[in-house]
Amino acid sequence: MTINEKLEKLREKMEKYNLDCYLEHNVDPHQSEYVADRWKTREWLSGFTGSVGTLVVTSKKSALWADGRYYIQAEKELNGSEIKLQKKGLEKTSKVHEWLSKNLKNNAKIGLNGKTYSEKYVSNLKKNITLEDIEFITRYDIVDELWKDRPEIPRNKAFIHPPEYAGKTRAQKIKNIRKKMKEKKCSHLIISTLDDIAWTLNIRGNDIKFNPYIISYLLIENDNISFYVLEEKIDKKIKKQLEKDNISLKNYSKIVKDLQKLSKKDKVWYSPETTNMWIVSSISEEANKYQKRVPTKLMKAKKNKKELKNLKNCQIKDGIAMVKFLIWLEETIKEREIGEVEAAQKVNEFRKRQKYFIEPSFSPISAYKENAAMMHYHAKEENQSFLKNKSFYLLDSGGQYMDGTTDITRTIPMGVLSREEKFHYTLTLKGHINLANSKFLYGATGSNLDVLSRKPLWEHNLDYKCGTGHGVGYLMGVHEGPQNISRTPNKIKLEEGMIVTIEPGIYIEGSHGIRIENDYVIVKDKKNNSDQFMKFKNMTYCPIDTQPIIKDLLTEEEIKWLNDFHSKVFDKLAKHLNEEERTWLKKKTKKL
Amino acid sequence: MTINEKLEKLREKMEKYNLDCYLEHNVDPHQSEYVADRWKTREWLSGFTGSVGTLVVTSKKSALWADGRYYIQAEKELNGSEIKLQKKGLEKTSKVHEWLSKNLKNNAKIGLNGKTYSEKYVSNLKKNITLEDIEFITRYDIVDELWKDRPEIPRNKAFIHPPEYAGKTRAQKIKNIRKKMKEKKCSHLIISTLDDIAWTLNIRGNDIKFNPYIISYLLIENDNISFYVLEEKIDKKIKKQLEKDNISLKNYSKIVKDLQKLSKKDKVWYSPETTNMWIVSSISEEANKYQKRVPTKLMKAKKNKKELKNLKNCQIKDGIAMVKFLIWLEETIKEREIGEVEAAQKVNEFRKRQKYFIEPSFSPISAYKENAAMMHYHAKEENQSFLKNKSFYLLDSGGQYMDGTTDITRTIPMGVLSREEKFHYTLTLKGHINLANSKFLYGATGSNLDVLSRKPLWEHNLDYKCGTGHGVGYLMGVHEGPQNISRTPNKIKLEEGMIVTIEPGIYIEGSHGIRIENDYVIVKDKKNNSDQFMKFKNMTYCPIDTQPIIKDLLTEEEIKWLNDFHSKVFDKLAKHLNEEERTWLKKKTKKL
Repeated sequence: MTINEKLEKLREKMEKYNLDCYLEHNVDPHQSEYVADRWKTREWLSGFTGSVGTLVVTSKKSALWADGRYYIQAEKELNGSEIKLQKKGLEKTSKVHEWLSKNLKNNAKIGLNGKTYSEKYVSNLKKNITLEDIEFITRYDIVDELWKDRPEIPRNKAFIHPPEYAGKTRAQKIKNIRKKMKEKKCSHLIISTLDDIAWTLNIRGNDIKFNPYIISYLLIENDNISFYVLEEKIDKKIKKQLEKDNISLKNYSKIVKDLQKLSKKDKVWYSPETTNMWIVSSISEEANKYQKRVPTKLMKAKKNKKELKNLKNCQIKDGIAMVKFLIWLEETIKEREIGEVEAAQKVNEFRKRQKYFIEPSFSPISAYKENAAMMHYHAKEENQSFLKNKSFYLLDSGGQYMDGTTDITRTIPMGVLSREEKFHYTLTLKGHINLANSKFLYGATGSNLDVLSRKPLWEHNLDYKCGTGHGVGYLMGVHEGPQNISRTPNKIKLEEGMIVTIEPGIYIEGSHGIRIENDYVIVKDKKNNSDQFMKFKNMTYCPIDTQPIIKDLLTEEEIKWLNDFHSKVFDKLAKHLNEEERTWLKKKTKKL
Repeated sequence: MTINEKLEKLREKMEKYNLDCYLEHNVDPHQSEYVADRWKTREWLSGFTGSVGTLVVTSKKSALWADGRYYIQAEKELNGSEIKLQKKGLEKTSKVHEWLSKNLKNNAKIGLNGKTYSEKYVSNLKKNITLEDIEFITRYDIVDELWKDRPEIPRNKAFIHPPEYAGKTRAQKIKNIRKKMKEKKCSHLIISTLDDIAWTLNIRGNDIKFNPYIISYLLIENDNISFYVLEEKIDKKIKKQLEKDNISLKNYSKIVKDLQKLSKKDKVWYSPETTNMWIVSSISEEANKYQKRVPTKLMKAKKNKKELKNLKNCQIKDGIAMVKFLIWLEETIKEREIGEVEAAQKVNEFRKRQKYFIEPSFSPISAYKENAAMMHYHAKEENQSFLKNKSFYLLDSGGQYMDGTTDITRTIPMGVLSREEKFHYTLTLKGHINLANSKFLYGATGSNLDVLSRKPLWEHNLDYKCGTGHGVGYLMGVHEGPQNISRTPNKIKLEEGMIVTIEPGIYIEGSHGIRIENDYVIVKDKKNNSDQFMKFKNMTYCPIDTQPIIKDLLTEEEIKWLNDFHSKVFDKLAKHLNEEERTWLKKKTKKL
C-alpha cells in the first residue's frame, strides 16, 4: 500500500467509528524514549521514520508535526503523499491543538489509541482546543486493524540485576515504596514506566534496544504485588525469586481487569504524565485517585552508595575503552581516512572488551566536521563522511554495563584547526568548567544552573539549541529523569547521588560542531549555618584534548580545574594500561 | 475586646452559619500588595500586625502562619491569646492545608470571605486538603459583623496621568486590549487588580499608601467599558474624559449584578490568581470562562519609549536626591550620631524637592549595622539605632514621581570596616555586576538568570534568602510583575522595555547587612543568525561606594563595568549639582 492508500483505509475506519479525526504517533504503552518496532505506528502510516512526531488525519486533510532535527528528512519521506509537513517550533507553525481548533468543528469526535496516549496528553489537548463539546474516543487502535504484518510484542528473556550491583534488595525498595504509599494514604500504586519497574524488581530485559527493559506493568498493593508481563520472558528461577517477595506474575493485559475491580475504599496512585488512557480509564469509578509522579522516579534517581561505588569502576572501564579508541584513531588517521561508521563500530568494540559490558547505551553519534553541527546526526554507510587529518571529529557514545551506564562526548582535533574552531572549542570548555566547578545552594534546580554553562557562549552571542545536561540511569536509560539541566522550568532539586551530564556545545551549520560531555554525581559541599551547599563530582575518566585550547582565554581557576581533572584521569586509568598507552595518556593529561 | 473574646464572638457566628472553621488574612478584594486599613481584618482579629499571614480558627483551636521575617514579632503579638504560632517555612511546620486536613473531618464546611480570597487560592486549598466532601462557604464576612469601628473604603480623589507621561492614550491601550480579547474570542474582560486599572485608564489615586491606586473594578466589553468605583472619587473633568472614551462610571459593587446578567454567547476573561471568589462566583453559569492572566499585565510591564525617556529624567532627579542625601550623611556624621528614623525622613525630604515627586514608593529601610541583617527591618522612634562612624549603614528607598517610580539601595561605609565587612561588600558587588553585565538569549527568564548574581557568593558558601530582583512599575507599584529575578520557576521571558532591579546581598545576623541595588531596563543586544541577545541597561544614577572594595577580588571586566557605570553617573548628574556637590561626586566616581 502507498501512504495515501493507507490513509484512505484509515478514513474508511474513521467513518465506520464515527470519528472526525485520528491522531497517531510512535509511542508505546509505557511512554518509553525508545520503542520496539511494534509501536512504530505513525512510521507505518506516514512513512516518516523520525523518533518524534505526531500525525493528524481528518476526513479531508492530514498533517505531520516534526521538529527542527527532522525538517529535511520529513520533507523527503513525506514526498509523494498527501501529508503536509508542519515544522514544529517555527513561530508561524500552528500547534496541534490550534490546527485541530481550525480544522474541526464543535462537537467533533477525536480518535486516538488510548494505549499510547497519556492521560496528561489528552487532558492538555482537551484544555487547549478552543472548540466546544469535543469528545475523545480512545478505544480504537485503527493501525492495528490495517497493519497486516505488524510486529509482535517483544518476547525476550529477562535477567536478574542482583543486589551486589543494585545496592539494595527488591524487598528494601518495595518497603520504601510502601512507606510513601502509606504517607499518601494510597492502597494501590500503578507503575507503567519500564525503567521504574526494572529498578523496583531488580530485573532487566532485552525488549528495547539500548534500554534493558521488560515490557510490563506493575501494581503494588499493601500486601501483594502483581507483575503483568508475557510469562515466557520470566524463567523459573526469576519467578521463584519474585514469588519469595510476594510478587505474582499475571498476563500483560490483565492489569485492566484488576483495576476495574477496585472499590470505594481504594486510593490509586499513578502518574498522569506517563500512564496511558487505556489504564487510567479502566480504574473503577468508585476508587479514589492520587495523581502524582510515582515515588520510584526520585528514589531511582538518587544513586545509593553501592551503585556509586560500582559506577566508579564502570566509568574507569569506560575510560579505558575510550583511551584505547583515541589511540587507535590517532594512529590510524596517520595511515588512512576513517569512515564515521567504522569509528562508531570501533568504540563499541573497545567497550565490548570491558568486563560486564552489555550493549551500547545509545547509537553513537560519530560525526566529522560539518556533520557534527547536526546535533542528532547518524552516520550511515551510504552517505557517511570520512575523517581526514584536519578539523574536528565529534564522538558521543556510551555503554550499558551490569555496574552502570555511561555517556561521554569528546571533540577530537584531527589535525590543523582554524582560529574559529579553536575559539569555539575554548568557549565550550569554559562553559563546561563554569558549571562543573560551581557550588550551589541545596534546593537549586537544573533550570537555575543551566545558564552557568551558557554564559561564556552568550558573551559572544553564541548558544546551543538543547539542554545543558540530563540525568543518567544505572544499567537503565542513558536519559533519566526527573532531574535535568535545561532552561525549561522544572522543580526538581539536584540531590545528593543524582547523576547528570554537563554537555555544552557550539554548532556552526556547514562548518563544525563541538561538544564536551562528562558525567557528574551531585555531592555535598560545606554547610554554613543552615545552608547546605552542593557541588558536582566528576565521574568520567577520559582526557579532554588540550591542543585546541587558546590558553589566554582561560582563567587561572579554569586551568586549575582542567589540570586537577587530568591528574585524576591519569591516576585512575594508568594502572590499567600498557606502557605505550600510559605514555600516550601521560602526554594527554599534561598540566596546561 | 481581647483577642480571645473576639475569637469567641467569631465562633458564635461560625456556629450560627454552620461553619467548622474560618480563615482570615490581610488581603483586599484586589489582591493588592499594600492594603488600606479597612482590610486589615486578620490584624484586628488576631493582634498580629505583619503584612502577610493567615489565621485559621476552628471551634476548638486557632493558628496563625507567619514567615521568617515575623517569627519574633508574631510571638510577641500573639502572646496572651489562644492563637498558636505556626512558623511558616520550617520543615516541621504543617502547611495550612495539612493543618486543616488534620483538624477537620470529612464533610467539613470551611468559611472565608470570598471578597478577599482569589479563586486560585480556594481551588488550591480544595485540591490539597486530603479530606473528602469538604465545602467552602464564601458568602460571610464575619469580621465585618464584629468590627464596630471598621474603617471605610478609602474615598480619595483620583487624578489624571496624561499621555505625555504615560506615553500612550487610554484609547490606544484599550484598542490593544480588545485586540487580545478578539484573539481569544472573549466578549468580556474583568480587571480587578488596581495597577492594571490605573494603567489602562491613565488615572491614578491615593487610596493606598505608596501605591497611587483607586479602589475599583473594570469590565471591558467590545463596545463599552464599565468602571466600578465610588463616584465621589472621580471629579467632573475626569468623568468627562472617561465618557469620551466610552467608559461609564458605575457603583463599586455593581459589577456583580452585571456579571450575573451574562449569557451563553459571552466569554469572560479573568485571572484566577487575582480575581476574588465573590466576583468569580457572580459570573452567570451560562457564560463561558477564559481563565488566564489578564493581558494588561504584560503590556504594562513593557515600558513604551516615552515612559523610558521620562523614566531616565526621573532617575536623574532621584540620583540628585540620593547624592544630596549622601553628602548630608557624610557631613552630619562627622558632627553627631544620626537616628535611623531621621535618616529615612531626610532622604524623603531630598526627594520631595524634586520635580513631579508624589510620595515615597515604599517605607524606606534605614538600617544601621546589625539591623541591616534583618531584610525587612523598619526603624521606629522608640527602638531605633543611631549611626556612628564605623560599620555599614544600609538605605533602601525610592520615590513615586509623575514620570516614574524608583528603587535604590546603597550600603554606606560610615567609617572603619572589618575585613569581613569589606569581603562581603566586594562579593555582593561581584554578584551585582555578574548579572548586570551579562548578555542573555531572548527567551531567558529571571529564574534562569538569578544564579548569576549568587554565584560569587555561593563560591564562599554564602546566600541571600530572597529573590535577586523584581519588576518596577511606572508611577505604580515598586514591585510589579509578571517578571522577576528569582530561583522560583517562572515562565515570563525578560522582554525589551521591562524594568527589573538587581539587588543581591549578604546578611549576617547580629553583625551586618549589605545590599547593592540598581534599576535596569532590558534592551536588545546583537542578533546572531536567528538568535536575538538581550542585556541590562542601567537606569540608576548614584555612585556605589568604592571605599569598601577589596580590589584584588575584582576581575578586570568587573572593574571596567564599575568605572563605566561611575563615569555615566557623573555625566548624568554633574550639571544638576553645585560646585561643592560636583567635587564630591567627582571623588566618589573616580576610576578604580
